Formats: sequence, C-alpha cells, structure tokens
Amino acid sequence: MIIVLKPHTTDKQINHIIEKVKKLGLKPMVSKGIERTIIGVIGEEDILRVQPLEVFPGVEKVMPVLAPYKLVSREFKQENTIVDVSGIKIGAKNIIVMAGPCSIENHTMLLKIAKQVKKAGATILRGGAFKPRTSPYAFQGLGEKGLKILHDVSKEAGIPTVTELMDIRDIDLVERYSDMIQIGARNMQNFNLLKEVGLSKKPVMLKRGMMSTIEEWLMSAEYILASGNFNVVLCERGIRTFEKATRFTLDISAVPVVKKLSHLPIIVDPSHAVGKWGLVAPVSSASIASGADGLIVEVHTDPEEALSDGAQSLLPANFKILMTEVGKIAKAMGRSV
Amino acid sequence: MIIVLKPHTTDKQINHIIEKVKKLGLKPMVSKGIERTIIGVIGEEDILRVQPLEVFPGVEKVMPVLAPYKLVSREFKQENTIVDVSGIKIGAKNIIVMAGPCSIENHTMLLKIAKQVKKAGATILRGGAFKPRTSPYAFQGLGEKGLKILHDVSKEAGIPTVTELMDIRDIDLVERYSDMIQIGARNMQNFNLLKEVGLSKKPVMLKRGMMSTIEEWLMSAEYILASGNFNVVLCERGIRTFEKATRFTLDISAVPVVKKLSHLPIIVDPSHAVGKWGLVAPVSSASIASGADGLIVEVHTDPEEALSDGAQSLLPANFKILMTEVGKIAKAMGRSV
Amino acid sequence: MIIVLKPHTTDKQINHIIEKVKKLGLKPMVSKGIERTIIGVIGEEDILRVQPLEVFPGVEKVMPVLAPYKLVSREFKQENTIVDVSGIKIGAKNIIVMAGPCSIENHTMLLKIAKQVKKAGATILRGGAFKPRTSPYAFQGLGEKGLKILHDVSKEAGIPTVTELMDIRDIDLVERYSDMIQIGARNMQNFNLLKEVGLSKKPVMLKRGMMSTIEEWLMSAEYILASGNFNVVLCERGIRTFEKATRFTLDISAVPVVKKLSHLPIIVDPSHAVGKWGLVAPVSSASIASGADGLIVEVHTDPEEALSDGAQSLLPANFKILMTEVGKIAKAMGRSV
Amino acid sequence: MIIVLKPHTTDKQINHIIEKVKKLGLKPMVSKGIERTIIGVIGEEDILRVQPLEVFPGVEKVMPVLAPYKLVSREFKQENTIVDVSGIKIGAKNIIVMAGPCSIENHTMLLKIAKQVKKAGATILRGGAFKPRTSPYAFQGLGEKGLKILHDVSKEAGIPTVTELMDIRDIDLVERYSDMIQIGARNMQNFNLLKEVGLSKKPVMLKRGMMSTIEEWLMSAEYILASGNFNVVLCERGIRTFEKATRFTLDISAVPVVKKLSHLPIIVDPSHAVGKWGLVAPVSSASIASGADGLIVEVHTDPEEALSDGAQSLLPANFKILMTEVGKIAKAMGRSV
Repeated sequence: MIIVLKPHTTDKQINHIIEKVKKLGLKPMVSKGIERTIIGVIGEEDILRVQPLEVFPGVEKVMPVLAPYKLVSREFKQENTIVDVSGIKIGAKNIIVMAGPCSIENHTMLLKIAKQVKKAGATILRGGAFKPRTSPYAFQGLGEKGLKILHDVSKEAGIPTVTELMDIRDIDLVERYSDMIQIGARNMQNFNLLKEVGLSKKPVMLKRGMMSTIEEWLMSAEYILASGNFNVVLCERGIRTFEKATRFTLDISAVPVVKKLSHLPIIVDPSHAVGKWGLVAPVSSASIASGADGLIVEVHTDPEEALSDGAQSLLPANFKILMTEVGKIAKAMGRSV
Repeated sequence: MIIVLKPHTTDKQINHIIEKVKKLGLKPMVSKGIERTIIGVIGEEDILRVQPLEVFPGVEKVMPVLAPYKLVSREFKQENTIVDVSGIKIGAKNIIVMAGPCSIENHTMLLKIAKQVKKAGATILRGGAFKPRTSPYAFQGLGEKGLKILHDVSKEAGIPTVTELMDIRDIDLVERYSDMIQIGARNMQNFNLLKEVGLSKKPVMLKRGMMSTIEEWLMSAEYILASGNFNVVLCERGIRTFEKATRFTLDISAVPVVKKLSHLPIIVDPSHAVGKWGLVAPVSSASIASGADGLIVEVHTDPEEALSDGAQSLLPANFKILMTEVGKIAKAMGRSV
Repeated sequence: MIIVLKPHTTDKQINHIIEKVKKLGLKPMVSKGIERTIIGVIGEEDILRVQPLEVFPGVEKVMPVLAPYKLVSREFKQENTIVDVSGIKIGAKNIIVMAGPCSIENHTMLLKIAKQVKKAGATILRGGAFKPRTSPYAFQGLGEKGLKILHDVSKEAGIPTVTELMDIRDIDLVERYSDMIQIGARNMQNFNLLKEVGLSKKPVMLKRGMMSTIEEWLMSAEYILASGNFNVVLCERGIRTFEKATRFTLDISAVPVVKKLSHLPIIVDPSHAVGKWGLVAPVSSASIASGADGLIVEVHTDPEEALSDGAQSLLPANFKILMTEVGKIAKAMGRSV
Repeated sequence: MIIVLKPHTTDKQINHIIEKVKKLGLKPMVSKGIERTIIGVIGEEDILRVQPLEVFPGVEKVMPVLAPYKLVSREFKQENTIVDVSGIKIGAKNIIVMAGPCSIENHTMLLKIAKQVKKAGATILRGGAFKPRTSPYAFQGLGEKGLKILHDVSKEAGIPTVTELMDIRDIDLVERYSDMIQIGARNMQNFNLLKEVGLSKKPVMLKRGMMSTIEEWLMSAEYILASGNFNVVLCERGIRTFEKATRFTLDISAVPVVKKLSHLPIIVDPSHAVGKWGLVAPVSSASIASGADGLIVEVHTDPEEALSDGAQSLLPANFKILMTEVGKIAKAMGRSV
C-alpha cells in the first residue's frame, strides 16, 4: 500500500498516519520527494485495505500495490485448474462447448435439442428452469418441473447439464437435478448466493456481471473458493458499453487477462454478448482463438417459438457449422473440440 | 410494436409474419415504403414483446413503441406517490434526508450519530447490518445483532430507520427491526428478492444498479408494485462509467427523467456516487436543485475508525453545513427540509 | 512515480531499473516488502512519465503519484482565474449565461433571439457558423457568412458572442468576428487546433470530449495555457454512457472535481448533455447548485424550423422561466445572475 | 421514419404534423392504436432526419427506420471493396499485417525494424511522424523530417507505408512521403480533415474513435466516400469502457458487424486496444478469427528506449511468434498471411 500525502502536509499529520500504520502491526517507510511525501507500507496489505486511510488529514490518495484476491490468483496456484463436470474436463486441452436452449420449455423440445447438439459435438447441455427476466410479466421459467425435465433428458441423451441458480432456497433442487450450477451475470455480486455455492460439492460456472471489472469478478470467484469450492469456471458474457449494434460488448481481452491473473478456466458466452444469432459464429471463433477453454451457446430447434431469447438462438444446422469452424480454430491452436 | 423488414423481403415472408401477428390476436398494418416495408402492430404490445420476432425470415429489426412498465408509470397514476415511513412522508413538499453510518458498529457509536444527524435535520437514520462487500475478507456487518442495535437506537433517539436487505432469508428480521427496507444496487435485479419485498407491508427504497438503465430500474420497481407493495422510493446512486475521478458518475438527469416517467418519489445517494466526502455537499445541493425528494448521506463521528466506507463519510460538523446549504436550495425551490 | 515489481524479480533486474532511473537524473528508493519489491522515484516525475518502464523485465506496473498537468492546476495558481469576454467576467461572483441558437440561420432570426435572451438575462450570445455534423448530408453551417451575421447582431443587440472553431484555417475569421472561441467536444483532442488557439489573444471555451476523462480534459487545457493563452473556460457537456434516456450523461460531479483540481472557471452545457428541452431547466439549476460558474443554453424562437438541434432548444418563454429558477438557486448560494 | 405520439394528442396536433410531413414532399400514414397514435412516413427519410420533429406538440419520440449512411453500406455495394496500397491488396483473401514503431525516431532504427517486420511477413510499414499526445510536454513526433525517413526506409526496405495525418496543413507532405494516410481515433470526427482526405488520391485508414458508435464511424467513412475517395480501410482499435485491466476494450464484435453493414475492409489494432505487449498476440489471433482483413501492430527493436508507447510494443522476436500464430488461424479459415 502506498500512501501519497498532499503538498504542505505537516509533520504532525505524517506522524499521526505513521502511528496508525504501526498500531496495525505494519511497517511504514517514509520517502520525502520534491513535491510529495509518500509512505510505503510493508506487511499484510489486507489489513490496510479495509482502513479508510483517505480520511486521515493530509492524505491525498491511497494506492494498493497488490491484487485483492488470493485463492483465485496464479500466484497462489501456478498450474491451470481443471474442473470436472461429471467426467467432462474444463480447462484441459479439449475445448468444451455447452449448448442448449435459453429456457427449458418441455421434454420433447429439450430432448430433440440435446440429441442434436450432442451430435454436433457439444458435451454439456444448457437450459434454464429459473430465468432472471427484466419484466415481471415475462416467462419466468418452469422451476422444479423444468429441472426434472433437464434431469430426465440428461439421462436419456447421455449428456451432463448446467443450469442457473437464482435463489438460495433452490440450491438443493439445482444440486439434485443438474451437474453444474450457473451463477448469472445479475447475481455475480449476490454475495450470499456465492457463499452458498461455495459450500456445494457441485462445480460452479460464474458469469461476469455486465458492469463488473475483471478484478471484481475474480473477487466474486474468491468468495466461492474461500467457502471451500475450488471447482469454478469463469464465463465472460459481454459488458455494457455505449455501443448499441450488439446487445453487450464482448470483452475479448478478458480471456488472456484472466489466464494471466488466475488459474481458473474461462469460457465465453457469445450468444448473450452479441444478442443476434448471425454474429455468434465469428465471435465464437474469436473467443477460442483468444485462448478460451470453451463456449456456452444458445441453440433452439424452433427459435420462432422460443419462450425467451429466440433472437440469439442458433438453429441446430447453424450450430453444426459453428462447431466445424470452431473446431478448425481449435486445431490450429493445438487443441481439439 | 413496429416491425421493419429487410429490403427484398418476399411476399411469402411478409404473409408469414402477418399470420403470426394475427394468431396472437393483434392487428397488423402493412406499409410499403420506397426502401423498406414496415408492419405496425395494433393491440397489446406486451404480447409481442416476448415473441422473438427478430428471427422471422425477412425481419431486420423490431422497435417497441411503448414503455414496458405499467404500474410505476405516470400514465398509470398521474399524481405523485407519497411514501410514509413511520410518519415521515417521502415525495411531498418536504425534502427528506436520511443519514447515518455505512455499517452499524456498536450501540454507543450509532446512538451518538443518530442524535447528531437528527439535531442537524435528518429525519431517517440509515445504517447497515448486512453489508455487500466486494471482498470475502472485508467486514460483512453485524447481522441480527446490528439490527437490534438499530432498533434500540431508533427508539432511544426517536427516529425511524432504513436498512439493507440482501438475503431473502433475512426479510422477517429486517421487517421486525426497521421501518424501511433498502434494496442495494447489486440486488436491483435480484428478482426473487424484489418479489419478496413486494409482499411486505414495509416501504422499500430501491437503489439503481450501477449498470442499469433507467428503464430497467423502473422495471425492477414494477416487480415490487406488481407483487402488491406500492410504497417504493427510488434512489439514484451513480452509474459506472469510464471516469475515475469519482467512484461512480452520479446521473443527475435521472431525477427529472424519473419524475417525468413515474409517479414514485426519487432520492439521491451522493456519498456512494462520488466516494469522497469532500464532494458530497455540492452534489447534494445539485440533487435537490434537480428536483429530488431527498438524500441519503453517510455520516460518521469517527471516519478514521469506520469499519466500512470511511472515505466517503461526513463528520457531523460537515453534515450540519451540508444541511444548511441544502436547506437554502430547498427554500429557493419552494420546498423545505 | 512508484514502480511495483513482480514477485521473484532478480537482483539483476532490479539493478537494471535502478541504473536507468539514475541515468535520468532521478533518485530511486528501493523498499522490499513481503510479497513485492517497490521502487519509489524521487525527482521530476515528468521525466519518467514518457519512459516505457512497464517493458523493463521484472516490472509489474508503474503508478504515477502526481497529476500530469501543471499550469491548469490549483497547486500552480491558488486563486480562481476570472476570464474576461469583452467585459463579461466568467469565474467571478456572477453566474454567466450564454444563450442562443445552435446554428446561425439568418440575420432576422438571430437578432430576434439575441434580444430576447439578453432581456431574459443572458450576457453572451452563442451561435454556430461552422457545425460539426455526424452526417455529411446535414446542414454544415453558413461559414463566414454566418460569422458576419453574428458580428452584426452582436453590435446591434449589444452582447458579446462565442462561436465554434473547427478548422485551423478559419482561426482568423473566428477571431475577427467573435469575442470568444469555442472548441467543441469532438475537437478536445485536436492538439494542433489547441496549440493555435493557445497563440490567440481571444478567450477560449474548451468543451469536454464526450469520452474524455477529467484528467485528459485538463491536459487539453494545459496545451492552450502552455502555448500562452491563460483565458480558458472549461465546459462540461455530458459524457457517453450506456444510459439512453438522455443524449449524454451530464457528469455533475465534474464541477466540484474541476474546482478542486484547477483554477479555471467551469460552466455547463445542459442542452447538449440531455438532448431534450424539457430536461434543460432542472439540470441547469443542478449545475449552478453544484458550483458551476455559468451555463450555455440553446434557445430558438422557432425550434420546429431550426436547421439543427431543434429538439433540445428552449423557446424564449421557457428560457425566461429557466433564468428565474436559476436566479433563485444562484441567490441561495450567495451568487447572482 | 416513425413518429410516435403521446397519449391524448389532439386532432389539431396530429394534423399539424401531417401537414408538415406533406409540405416536405413525403407521405404520412396514420395508424391509431389502443394506447398510441403512430405516423409512418414514406419517402426519403433523409429529408426528415434533419427536421426536429421531437419539438412538435404531441410528439413523444421519433424513430428512424433506415441507417443514415449510403455509400459505405452493403446495400449500396454488395461485393467487398478491395483497397490497393501500392500493390498490397486489403480486403482480399490475404490477411495484411502492418507493423512498425509507434513513432519514427531515426533512420537506423526504422530501417532495422522495417527489415525485421518484413522478414516476419508484414507487408506495410507503420510509423508516426505526427503524434497526437495527451500531454503538451510529451514527444510530438519528428514531423517532416520523420516523413522523409519513412520514405527513404520504404524505398530501401521495399515496403509501402502508412502514417498518421493530424493537421489539414500537412496533407501534401503525408501524400508525398507515404502510401496510405491514417486518420487517428481522436480525429475520427474531425470532419474537415475527413473532407480533405476524401479529395486525396491516396488510400485512407480510418480508425474508430474511442467513444464512437459503429454507426458514427461509418458516417465518418461516408464523409470520405462522399468527397470522392472510395479507398477506405476501417480500423477497430478499442473503445473506452469502465474496465481498466486493458487500456481500451477491443470491440471484437465490431468486425462481423461492419462486415455485415459495409463493403469496406476492416482491420484491427490490437496494440493500442490492449496497451500491454503481453496481450497483443492472443487478441491478434482473435481478430483474424472474427473475420478481420488484417492487423496493425506496434513493433520496436528496443521498447525500453522507445519515445512513445513502448509498453505495448512487441520485440521483433515476439512479433515473429505472433505472425506464426496468426498464420495458423488464417489458414484454418481458408485465408493466408
């Protein structure tokens, strides 16, 4: 932690800060420059992080030196984490593609989609039973009924599943019926929910909030790891910017940034990022080329009748083309799908 | 709803869309322009809103004509809503100032602050027992113990209270111990939590998400009203932008925009918006001048020792100055504090 | 300047950096912490600012301690600068309101508007002869002809003027025909243009770029001061964010932030910020309450026929109401209009 | 153009608008819905675009139906434009890589870099003689002297060049000494400069403004085409967002969006987008995978001594690795480098 003082700070003010730092068991190092005096603090930076040093008289600003996360960092664990979802390894050499409809609508439809995406190369089935909808009047998902359909289809089609958990009270249901728990973008900072899934034995996919920095995202993952669950996969899904040609702006650089800062696997959700099916394929290829460990893609056999997010859903035929293109990119990078 | 078609759309495609619209019980009106054919749809726009019309062959884009909210709109209710918090009226002629520490730390401190802010003119005491913290290692609030302190201090000092609810499981506690339920920015789209407070008898203060449009914010309020609770106060607290001189960017225009679109009262949280105590007073004056019905301000008797957000807390002496300045602005506008 | 090193940096790498710092005539101070080694650099920070220290082996990040601007800073000059525009003082006790049409359209119209805004209390007439338009097909302004009209109207109505300069080649014209040179948001980082107006004797109004940080804005002002022209007025006009209810998001906190960092006067352009005339008045009041030294407002006698930006122009009658409201706020703050 | 009226609009107001529309030679089509009356306008939308219809009594909002650009659109020209830069074809099957230092510093250095990047596969040499710098105190480029060096090195190394034009007065120089004119992000809406390069015979690379929407960017290109120069290459270089892990946020989706909307070639500048050399390679691969026609990459033989932007410059050895990786991706897509 570096404490930058205002010009003309008095010795009394400086001593007041130094005493505070010492009282916390840390070691202050004062450096008087021409225009500013600076105090470097040696010791556990976390102790200082929660102290409002900015309010001390004479302090201009406080600059942290270290990242605020520990368990998710590359410094804590150098080798890549590989997350196992009922036998499917995320973060290893293989690119993992999760695919399926936005919402689970009925057994027949889900089974049809499950078979087609599996045939095209997807290894995890996605589908929502609890849907976070901006409008209280929009379809909110089938709830437990949807989870049962997901579970049955998973067995019939032989493909593990991922589904979103929105409400702490539903965690037992989601754990029982699916193989991986998804935390959506709107719940990335629902800290109580994070603590709960941190106590779960199931792997967790943590989507980035649409207005969250990479640092905040890693801090949210830290909540899960700190509660004991190290099986976390990060998912970049676009951030909110001024650009309106796409629903969100996919932050492609987040992939190599996260790879550098953390040992956790990272996948990309191109469907929600762009919001238009015609853009999903090129953005999927780009994601794999940037180093992502996988994708989660919306596929629907009849987007015209989809109960949610039809506009960004691919038809199975287009998904098949996407898988071929992504496969070529993966191969060019020495990976496989 | 306006459906804009691509150039060179075939009659077959146009008929396919027209049939779909009719099947939904709506009336399509086709208008063939020089460069584009457009289909206007007459009837309940909400029916179409959940249909993925963008995926129909030939459709270029779909433009909604109406706002997606109903109960919160000025069209639904023309006169201003006045929310009663244990006798304090929000949205009436009087400017309401809520003040207090970020976190409840102990009885002595809270009582001291409560007396001072009340003396300076604040009429509602704020203080958090459950704190949404970016870091799992930061102080998370005193929980139920804090709520009890809040309740006791409220009685002793004779001032009603507002406190944040983060977890559905804590709603009974918060209802029992405080006069108003706060939904924080990070939970603005925690839709299950919104539904629960919609069932509560207590008034609700709904903060705007740092990444949420005004329309999404009003939709979240709609969730609460649609569940039966019309006592909702909106709170603008800054949005996330590229500017880093302040913690967030206070969207001052949101005040007159909300006043125009909705009948609900709106207050401003200058402390979280700017993140630096030295900027709180001018931004408070600006908020009242823009037409806000009140403020929620962080005040701490000893910011140097505050367990959270000390950097943006005002000392009681500075809060008193702020109240004088705000009072002058309110008076100039024909209101009072 | 603080240089933070990566963990496990070798002594050789540290020495390499130390030598570089010394070679530049600066004094390095090494501080070895538990997790990181840090090098504080004492001396002229500007020397280091242009050095790409991040590329040195072992460097994790470089953190500047000082602001990069000098002449515009409060540290350089403590008392407020007052800019004189042909007798009108900006930055003094009086609130200055500039008003007029977006574009100069013809003599009759401009004279009519000039008289009305002057009567309502405006003391500077605005009007564009050169218009930066997103579309090459939109009205681009009357050019020199417009400037002559502006000049004639200024004499007839007895009110000084401000007008935008877009092209270095037009500087003589703008200097000859108007009292103040406006640099628009899109040219805030047109550095050659800034240098030229820095050589001018006329006062300059520098609008903030719609995506520029306050620091970059002050750096652009620094260009003008560094070329010799200290008569600079800053103008906040809204920044670009994800919110679409207004054309831009007025950054109201920028007013007190700039007041703290710089001695230059600051005014606000509410018309371009919100883009809708119905929101101009409340946002104008808020701007004055936040501490702004003035406003620049679009007024048109016939917005329905305006050749540009009619949607955000006030009718003279509404402008009069705005002036009354703003006057009350100014008075409450001990200022006057 | 669709004009949406407020509820309770009077017939008089509706007739007033209808008359205005007819007076402009357009055909209004009124459609009375349950909650709103809507007026569709048939005819040249551009005529209405410059009319401030929002100010007409009774109008709630005006929604354009068509894109505002013509010449740059796919509708105007269906096949891809291929831009020829002294024999190098941009927009064809081959991926084009432009590489070189940020600033031209001296002949020896530039020649050395030119030879190395050419050997690694780059086909155009980049290098700035005029540098737009945030600070007036930073190195501003060598000016004409730099251009001469660029020209000489181009001949010696046998590689065409691209360099930035900042000031209209320098256009003759830039045309004389280089093969392609670069318009930088900060000048994307310097409309007078755009008109001038529109009159030039040289191909133009138009960078996207860091704050500009794709639509505005295409409108700026429209300025150049409308002035007669169709040889325009677009360059995505990152937009400004709240994320601070990278210098800007590369908008990867802009590549397929532009490909859909326009016939112009598009390349990506990964160096300025991310601002850190370690992230340049993965983001370059992603750009090609998204469908970009090329890259412009900063390379410096001695980044530690670079006079500008050293932190984002690649060493020739790393550039060579990047070219290999990019080559694999290009090949996987059926293209070549």
